[in-house]
Amino acid sequence: MRMYDIIAKKRDGYALTKEEIDFFVEGYTNGEVPDYQASALCMAIFFQDMNDEERANITTAMVNSGDTIDLSPIEGIKVDKHSTGGVGDTTTLILGPLVASLDVPVAKMSGRGLGHTGGTIDKLEAVPGFHVEIDKSQFIDLVNSNKLSVIGQTGNLTPADKKLYGLRDVTATVNSIPLIASSIMSKKIAAGADAIVLDVKTGAGAFMKSLEDSKALAEAMVRIGNHVGRNTMAVISDMNQPLGRAIGNALEVEEAIETLKGNGPEDLTELCLTLGSQMVVLAGKADTLDEARQKLEENMKNGKALEKFGTFLKSQGGDERVVEDPSVMPKASKQFELNAKKSGYVSDIVADELGTAAMMLGAGRATKESEIDLAVGLYLNKKVGDYVEEGESLLTIYANQDDVEDVKEKLYANITISDEKVSAPTLIHNMVTGE
Amino acid sequence: MRMYDIIAKKRDGYALTKEEIDFFVEGYTNGEVPDYQASALCMAIFFQDMNDEERANITTAMVNSGDTIDLSPIEGIKVDKHSTGGVGDTTTLILGPLVASLDVPVAKMSGRGLGHTGGTIDKLEAVPGFHVEIDKSQFIDLVNSNKLSVIGQTGNLTPADKKLYGLRDVTATVNSIPLIASSIMSKKIAAGADAIVLDVKTGAGAFMKSLEDSKALAEAMVRIGNHVGRNTMAVISDMNQPLGRAIGNALEVEEAIETLKGNGPEDLTELCLTLGSQMVVLAGKADTLDEARQKLEENMKNGKALEKFGTFLKSQGGDERVVEDPSVMPKASKQFELNAKKSGYVSDIVADELGTAAMMLGAGRATKESEIDLAVGLYLNKKVGDYVEEGESLLTIYANQDDVEDVKEKLYANITISDEKVSAPTLIHNMVTGE
Repeated sequence: MRMYDIIAKKRDGYALTKEEIDFFVEGYTNGEVPDYQASALCMAIFFQDMNDEERANITTAMVNSGDTIDLSPIEGIKVDKHSTGGVGDTTTLILGPLVASLDVPVAKMSGRGLGHTGGTIDKLEAVPGFHVEIDKSQFIDLVNSNKLSVIGQTGNLTPADKKLYGLRDVTATVNSIPLIASSIMSKKIAAGADAIVLDVKTGAGAFMKSLEDSKALAEAMVRIGNHVGRNTMAVISDMNQPLGRAIGNALEVEEAIETLKGNGPEDLTELCLTLGSQMVVLAGKADTLDEARQKLEENMKNGKALEKFGTFLKSQGGDERVVEDPSVMPKASKQFELNAKKSGYVSDIVADELGTAAMMLGAGRATKESEIDLAVGLYLNKKVGDYVEEGESLLTIYANQDDVEDVKEKLYANITISDEKVSAPTLIHNMVTGE
Repeated sequence: MRMYDIIAKKRDGYALTKEEIDFFVEGYTNGEVPDYQASALCMAIFFQDMNDEERANITTAMVNSGDTIDLSPIEGIKVDKHSTGGVGDTTTLILGPLVASLDVPVAKMSGRGLGHTGGTIDKLEAVPGFHVEIDKSQFIDLVNSNKLSVIGQTGNLTPADKKLYGLRDVTATVNSIPLIASSIMSKKIAAGADAIVLDVKTGAGAFMKSLEDSKALAEAMVRIGNHVGRNTMAVISDMNQPLGRAIGNALEVEEAIETLKGNGPEDLTELCLTLGSQMVVLAGKADTLDEARQKLEENMKNGKALEKFGTFLKSQGGDERVVEDPSVMPKASKQFELNAKKSGYVSDIVADELGTAAMMLGAGRATKESEIDLAVGLYLNKKVGDYVEEGESLLTIYANQDDVEDVKEKLYANITISDEKVSAPTLIHNMVTGE
């Protein structure tokens, strides 16, 4: 088998066999296939696409390129959730305890963040004492006993994907549905999930700007998952404005607590219930999405979801009092209001740019080495569709610095107020259930 | 400027500016642009093509990447001819003296061959004493005094093309019209020609198998040439069967001599007159193709073309008696006839495979290091459309070995005899004059 023939075959629009895809992925991982052939193939895939079988095969080949996590000692159907990334996305903090409260086992491997705010682990570390330095057997015991645990990334998962993504990133071949879908799915599958729920963001603040592309990506991932025997569903959710109201680590934990109590922002609550319902159905804890949703709403109301969060935090060393009293977390020393310069309807809040503003305050890492400030961030008092009076606060800035003029300038530049009435954007654009 | 953006721009179907193309070609030549970005760009060009201006700009950028030959000390319009390569293609040996006999200056830089038979220099070296080890001033003097000289490749011409071709060859990106056309044209332009005549081969034995692709390539090269100020014309000629009757170095020199006398094979003569007419018109030695053709035919008949060949060979140390007595060249020790196994019409002679058979006899180089045998080769007694009786000779094998069974087997497998009448194939499919 020659890499040349594999490139030429894909270039000419033919489907690659499992053996050809394995030859490429294995060869590229161990260095026998050079970068220049891999990048030519990726560009050919960009133009010629891959069919369902090829997509499943490249995903499996990437899973097999490295370690995989064996979650079989955990009882039940392990469901993982993945988001393609947004601003102020607190869903993971909420969904874990929410579905665990219905006995869905959540064995979450998570990472630290780069960009707007921290990752899930950074956010949880805003709770004093909480840590993820537990070993694998402890992790599995915790999921079995409490249905929820979070551990840091471990093992050499999908090295082929890491290497290939690095190459795609410098050869303008990232933006290819089969390559994006297989990259995401290979990581989830290697991490051991039996079933997967995907939150594909769409809009100005998302990786996929158009609804059409987001749909194509969601459908591609659902088909890959089901093709390789992992039940998979997806939600396409709006990321034109930030999700919820909080952007920043401790602020998002506080928002998660409010949401678990049933008092969260409308959009964040709705998205968590939508994603959570899929997780519950996939885990076999409800027969229909409606039934699952009803059970989740019940556990928000009766306090079981919040209680689960507390037990979880405590089990990994965290101060469980946080669920009653968020002030045990780090608090910013200063607050500034961003007052509306005119009256009208909020018509646009550029998600990306608000994320960058939060990073400027110290909420996120500009580089891997940056220290983050867990206390700082933004809290949106108005969202798209809301009416605001001149001088009224659009959002509150939580900072540990005196001068926030730069941040304010960026924020003003990215929040638009319109004279005409504007309706709140659609949150859930589509659900892809793979049926 | 970033290579990433250049790849993405081409990937998305936009035209690259002159500055972007220069950035890529210069950067790739000096190693600043890595192979993996260059191959991704080549694949994007394969799919998205280049417009006339981009094609001209990449050609010029490749010319500027290395040395160029200055032929300005030679009087007159220097016309070069280029063939995309075929089997038994003796045209260069004929065209040089033929057009030089009409005072068209021919300053030919040529190479050694790899594959079926030798290159132009190898063939000429079948003439005892002939050599191309002359210096540049001698070369120019010879063209000025005698209108014809051949020199070996000199200087570091188009290093960008050499490096890029090597990369395209292993990344399945050779077969792209803008890249093939710019590669060929950059070499011709760097070699100093004022005007260029192209012989684009089409058919089973050619690089371009379909007439449509051959036309596209011919038109692309003619437009590039005219875009950069070099008058260019092209002929699209058939390469389904070998051209002429001789395949092999000394055999082709002998065939060239016969053709210069006006006694050559019909197809070879016709192609030389067609290409030669274009050369004569481009050099300003005739106003129309018809007038040029008449003059060329005249010089075949009156002996001036052959006389020019003799003077040329002598000027570079060759034994000029060859034009009267080809037996001064190396002669194969053995001859074998390939007799027809049945009667009928010759319907197919696979050019490529006959070339390979000649190489098996030693006429061509399998690798750069191979020694070639100038005496051996094939002589076709029948061509497509001819009637042959069972037992009559299809071709004569000239060998320096006793056992030619392998060669015969290959030849039989690649010559088809049909019961039905077959007509000779069209030789000249198109002429592209750039008007």
